[in-house]
Amino acid sequence: MHLEKIYEGKAKIIFASSDPNCVIQHFKDDISAFNKQKFDTIYGKGIINNHISAALMQKLEIAGISTHLVKILNEREQLVKKVQMVPLEVVVRNFTAGSFCKRFNALEGVQFSSPITEFFYKDDSVSDPLVNEDHILCFKWLTKEEINEIKSLALCVNSYLADLFFTIGIKLVDLKLEFGKLMAGDKSNKILLADEISPDNCRLWDIQTGRKLDKDCYRLELGEVIEIYEEVAKRLGIIFHK
Amino acid sequence: MHLEKIYEGKAKIIFASSDPNCVIQHFKDDISAFNKQKFDTIYGKGIINNHISAALMQKLEIAGISTHLVKILNEREQLVKKVQMVPLEVVVRNFTAGSFCKRFNALEGVQFSSPITEFFYKDDSVSDPLVNEDHILCFKWLTKEEINEIKSLALCVNSYLADLFFTIGIKLVDLKLEFGKLMAGDKSNKILLADEISPDNCRLWDIQTGRKLDKDCYRLELGEVIEIYEEVAKRLGIIFHK
Repeated sequence: MHLEKIYEGKAKIIFASSDPNCVIQHFKDDISAFNKQKFDTIYGKGIINNHISAALMQKLEIAGISTHLVKILNEREQLVKKVQMVPLEVVVRNFTAGSFCKRFNALEGVQFSSPITEFFYKDDSVSDPLVNEDHILCFKWLTKEEINEIKSLALCVNSYLADLFFTIGIKLVDLKLEFGKLMAGDKSNKILLADEISPDNCRLWDIQTGRKLDKDCYRLELGEVIEIYEEVAKRLGIIFHK
Repeated sequence: MHLEKIYEGKAKIIFASSDPNCVIQHFKDDISAFNKQKFDTIYGKGIINNHISAALMQKLEIAGISTHLVKILNEREQLVKKVQMVPLEVVVRNFTAGSFCKRFNALEGVQFSSPITEFFYKDDSVSDPLVNEDHILCFKWLTKEEINEIKSLALCVNSYLADLFFTIGIKLVDLKLEFGKLMAGDKSNKILLADEISPDNCRLWDIQTGRKLDKDCYRLELGEVIEIYEEVAKRLGIIFHK
């Protein structure tokens, strides 16, 4: 049952649920890029991302990574644990792409000798700037121990998903993760993987053809978003009604 | 004796010297800001910065920080040890100002609970981007041990200079340092403080009045650069001929 809207972001809405320790994460069809300079509605995108994200978080949970996911509720909604979101985007990169290439005028698609991690402060009004650990500490977004824990979790998630995608012919180029802290109960302050994991926030390249199977197909207008996102879902073996 | 020009930057020229382990650092009168969108020549600025930088590096050397300075040669030139420059600007901030305020839409002049350090990759073609430790390692600019050594050196320099400026009624708001690695001899790869320390790359505010006694007077057109830089030299007890 939906209670009041708690938060609305660019691609999702959070509603209260009847369980005070949980909220409902609703996936919208809205898509945007370049700090919302480009935006559209793509019918069905939210349905696919809901299912992809739930499937990946279930697998990660089994692999020992704590996530916010409780269960999928319907085609666009998941029940998730209520967390205090950490106001950072955690990016793990296996290959050069996107803003990394722009920032350093670097070629795309070069593999890093080991994955690199970046933190961005989530604030559209200043265009989500890259931050370092001193910034995170001075703004008290995390403690030093929490930074280390989140870095380590992000690298585990990346390593697990890179292996998983490899088995279905996809190179995980980079991914953007968000984390939250449990708000109530014995485990308050425990860090959970939150938000979503979907082609909206991973770069996924077909290993054979190099075809981009992610939001870059929208950013760069390379093909039909729905068709491409469905291809990822299909390879992951996800079955859902449209 | 001048031999060939090795490098010319925005504010200095490096010439070879008759000693193969040393070079001559020549201070120009050129001044620029906003990635060279604003630039001018201010007669005498190079002379003042040469003397301020030499005086501060001598004091730091006595305090136990290894610097590139060998000796001052004449009004615009210093003999310095030949180093391989690390392509990073190391910024230490005691109070919010400048690009920090822009990046986070933060108020100016707020003291950090402890100094924060930032690394910027020196490359005008990409506007000197902020980088994190993973970037520094992946581009092999420094090893992890060298990053820690440089951070620790930068914080020592900051702490020494903040105390020194405090005694002459000046608040050290932030400073930008550059480091180099000794290229030859038994101590090759030893890290030295290099470049310059002057009102061109420190923010210095008068404690009583809040007046900006640094390059912001040029960036923001707040007063005569020479007069202001001379005020800093005078308070430091530096005597030189004009």
